[in-house]
Amino acid sequence: MNDNTQREENTLIIDRLHESLSADKPDIARELLMQMHPSEIADVLESLPLKAREAIWCLINPKLEGDVLSELHDTVRAELLEQMQPQEVVEVTRDLDTDDVADIIQGLPEEIQDSVLRSMDEQNRQRLASVLSYPEDTAGRMMNTDVISVRADVSLDVVMRYLRLLGQIPENTDNLMVVDRENNYLGILALANVLIKDPESSVGENMTGETGIPAQTPANEVAKIFEQRDLVSAAVVDEKNILLGRITVDDVVDVIQEEADYTLRSMAGVTDEDMFTPVLWSVRRRVAWLCINLATASLAAWVVGRFQETIAQLVILAVLMPIVANMGGVAGSQTLTITIRGIALGQLSKSNTRSLLLKEIGVALLNGLVLAAVVTLIAIAGFDQPKLGLIVGLAMVLNLFTASLAGTLIPLGLKHFGIDPAVAGGMLLTTVTDAVGFFTFLGLATLLLV
Amino acid sequence: MNDNTQREENTLIIDRLHESLSADKPDIARELLMQMHPSEIADVLESLPLKAREAIWCLINPKLEGDVLSELHDTVRAELLEQMQPQEVVEVTRDLDTDDVADIIQGLPEEIQDSVLRSMDEQNRQRLASVLSYPEDTAGRMMNTDVISVRADVSLDVVMRYLRLLGQIPENTDNLMVVDRENNYLGILALANVLIKDPESSVGENMTGETGIPAQTPANEVAKIFEQRDLVSAAVVDEKNILLGRITVDDVVDVIQEEADYTLRSMAGVTDEDMFTPVLWSVRRRVAWLCINLATASLAAWVVGRFQETIAQLVILAVLMPIVANMGGVAGSQTLTITIRGIALGQLSKSNTRSLLLKEIGVALLNGLVLAAVVTLIAIAGFDQPKLGLIVGLAMVLNLFTASLAGTLIPLGLKHFGIDPAVAGGMLLTTVTDAVGFFTFLGLATLLLV
Repeated sequence: MNDNTQREENTLIIDRLHESLSADKPDIARELLMQMHPSEIADVLESLPLKAREAIWCLINPKLEGDVLSELHDTVRAELLEQMQPQEVVEVTRDLDTDDVADIIQGLPEEIQDSVLRSMDEQNRQRLASVLSYPEDTAGRMMNTDVISVRADVSLDVVMRYLRLLGQIPENTDNLMVVDRENNYLGILALANVLIKDPESSVGENMTGETGIPAQTPANEVAKIFEQRDLVSAAVVDEKNILLGRITVDDVVDVIQEEADYTLRSMAGVTDEDMFTPVLWSVRRRVAWLCINLATASLAAWVVGRFQETIAQLVILAVLMPIVANMGGVAGSQTLTITIRGIALGQLSKSNTRSLLLKEIGVALLNGLVLAAVVTLIAIAGFDQPKLGLIVGLAMVLNLFTASLAGTLIPLGLKHFGIDPAVAGGMLLTTVTDAVGFFTFLGLATLLLV
Repeated sequence: MNDNTQREENTLIIDRLHESLSADKPDIARELLMQMHPSEIADVLESLPLKAREAIWCLINPKLEGDVLSELHDTVRAELLEQMQPQEVVEVTRDLDTDDVADIIQGLPEEIQDSVLRSMDEQNRQRLASVLSYPEDTAGRMMNTDVISVRADVSLDVVMRYLRLLGQIPENTDNLMVVDRENNYLGILALANVLIKDPESSVGENMTGETGIPAQTPANEVAKIFEQRDLVSAAVVDEKNILLGRITVDDVVDVIQEEADYTLRSMAGVTDEDMFTPVLWSVRRRVAWLCINLATASLAAWVVGRFQETIAQLVILAVLMPIVANMGGVAGSQTLTITIRGIALGQLSKSNTRSLLLKEIGVALLNGLVLAAVVTLIAIAGFDQPKLGLIVGLAMVLNLFTASLAGTLIPLGLKHFGIDPAVAGGMLLTTVTDAVGFFTFLGLATLLLV
C-alpha cells in the first residue's frame, strides 16, 4: 500500500498512454508498449476504460498477446476475447503453457474451444484435455504438463546426456521428477545434484522421496504447501499416483494474490469488479448486496420503532443512539477480523475456540469500561448530564460484550454451514450490533429515565 | 477461505496437542511435533494461548527451533525470545539464512545482539552486518548472502568444475550471478544452461543481461517485480551496482502474504494482533482506535442534534434515519474497496481518476434510484406513507451520490498526504456517509414534512 517508484512509474506510463491515444498518436503508444513486460501491459490494460483497452490491444506486439492475455483478470480477458476471431485465438495461444491455455479457452463458446483444440497436435490436445478435466481452482487445473521425468535406475551421466538432447529445460525447473516404468511418481532429483554429484551414481542414489500433490487438491491448499515447504515446483499425481504434471511457484504466487484480493473484495460485496467494470454491470452486481443491507438495516430500524414513545419524550436519545450502535459495530469488526483470520490460517479449532471467546469478551469488557468512563466524564463535564452519560456508557459496555460474542460466533457459524465468513460476516455483525445497540440504549433509557 | 483437508488436519493436530498437554502427556505431544514441518509447528504455536506456546516450545526438536522461529510472526517470536538465554539464541540461529537471522535478532536487546554477533565467524558477521544495515521491508533486508557468482570470461566447463568443488548449491538456486572483476553485477547464467550448453562456450555467451534490484527497493515493489517477471531468484545490488546478495521467491511469498494480511487487519484497526495476544495488549491497541471512532461518531450525532425539534414533531424520522446512513456507508465501502485496490495495484493515475469518479457516480445514482423505488413502494404499499417514502428515497440517492464521491476521493486524498488509505479510509468514509445521511434525510423532512 506504500507509495513507491514502481507504482509511480506505472501510473506515469498510464498517463502517457492516455495522452498519446487522445492526441491520436498511436506510434508513441506503440513505442511505450514495446518497452513493457507482458504483465506490465496487462496491468495497464486493466487500468484503462473499456474503449481505451481495445485501442491499446491493437497496438500490442502480436507475439506478446498470449502472454498478456494469460496475465489479465478473468473479466477483462473475457471482454477482449469476445472481439477476437477463432483463428486469432488459436494464434495467440500457440506458445503458452497448458495451464494458461486452459485458463484462456475455458470461458469461450464451445465452437471456438473446438477450433483451438483442432488446431493443436495430438499430444498437446491430450495434455490440454487432461488439464481441462479438473475443476477450476484445483491442482489439476494449475499444473503444466511440461515436466521432465527420469527413471531411478539410470546414472546421472545418462540424465545429463538426455538433457543435452532435449536442448532446453522448461522455466522454473529446479527438480527433475523421478518415476518408475509405469510412470508412478517416486520423488525428485534436484537439478543441482545432476551438476555436482558423481556422474556414475544413479538417480535413485541422489533423489529425495516425495509424495505428489493429488490433482483434486484445492488451489489454496496447494499455496499453503508451497509456502510451508518453500517449494519452487511440485509434482501433480492422479489417484493412482501416476505423474500428471507439475505446478510452479509463479502460478502459486498468482493464487495467493487472487485469494487475498478475493477476501478484500468479497467483504465489500464487489467480487468480479475492477475499476472500469461498465456501469450497468456494476449496478447489477452491487444492487443485490445493497438490497440485503436494506433489509438488515430495516430490522435495526424496527427495534428503534418499538421505542417511539420514549424518544418522543426525550429526543436527545435519538441523537445519542447512533453512537452506541456505531461503537458496537467497530469493536465487533475487530473481533471478526481476528476470527476470520484464524479460520483462514487454519488456527482455530474446537479446543481453542473457548480461549478465543473468553479473551475477546475480556477485551470487550475492559474496552467498554474505558469508553463508558470517557463518555460519562464528557456527559458530566460538558453537558451536566450524569445519568444520561451513565446510560450511554452502560449500553456501550453491553453492546461491546454482544459484539465480542457476535464477532467470534458469527464467522464460526457461517463456516459450519459452509458459507464464506468474509462475504456475509460483516453485514450480519452490524445487524446484530445495531439492533442490540439500539435496544440496550433505548431500553435502559425507558427503564431509568422516562 | 474454503474448507479443505489441509486446514482440517491442522485443526485436528491442534486439538490433539491440546489434549496431550492437558492430560499431562508430553510424550504424545512430542511425537506429534516430530512429524511436522517447521512452518506447520509455527502455525500451531500461533494458534495456542501464550502458556501452551511455551509448553510446546520446550518439546520441539532443538535442531528445528531456528527454522520455527523464522516462520513465526514478529509478536509471537518476540514473546518466545524473551524467555531465552543469549547462548540459546546463538545456538538457534547458527544454521539459518542471513536474512532470517537478521529478522530474528533485530528485535532483541543490544547485549544479546552483541553476543550473537560475537559468536559468528568474521565472514558471517560481516554479511549479517550488511543485511542489518538496510531498513526493514527493503530488498537489502530480504536478501541472502549465499549467492554463487561467476565471471563472464570463464567457460561452462570451468563453472561446472567449480560447482563440483563447492559440493553443494544453496536452495532455490536457478541462476548463477555473473559479475566482472570488481564484483559489478552483469546478469544471470541459468543453471540449466550449464547443463545443456556447449561446455567449451563461455559464461558470457550463455548469460542473460539483467539489472539487479537496488538494496533500497521497498519489499512490496520487490514482490511486484517477482510476480511480473515470474522469478525464482534475483540479484540485489548497491548504488554502485556491486552484487550484494540475492532474494529468493520463498521470501517473496512471505511478503505477499504479510501485505495482504496487513491490509485486512489495518482496515479493522487490529494490526500486530493475533488470536491470543494477551487481553491487556489487545485493549491497549484497540482502545485508541475506538476512541477515534467515538469522536467521529459524535460528529454524526451532532448533526442529528441540530434537528431535535423536527424529530420531536415526527418521531418516525428517528426510526428511519439509521437506514439512510447505513446504506450510504455500505455503498461507499464498495467504491472505497475498488479505489483502494486500484491504488494498491498502481492502476490509478491522474488520467483515469476522472473516468473512475464518473463511473462510480453513475453506479451510485442508478443504485440510488433502484433503492429509492423499492423504499417508496414499500412505504406506499406497507405503511400508506408515500411522502415519507419519497423523502427516504431521495435522501438515499443523495447519500449514495456523496458516498461515491467520498469513496473515491478520501483514499486518493489520504494517499496524497502519505497516509495508508486502508487504515483510515473506512472510518473517514462512514463519518461522511453518517453525517450526510442524517443531514439530507432530516433536512428534507424539515423542509417538506414538518
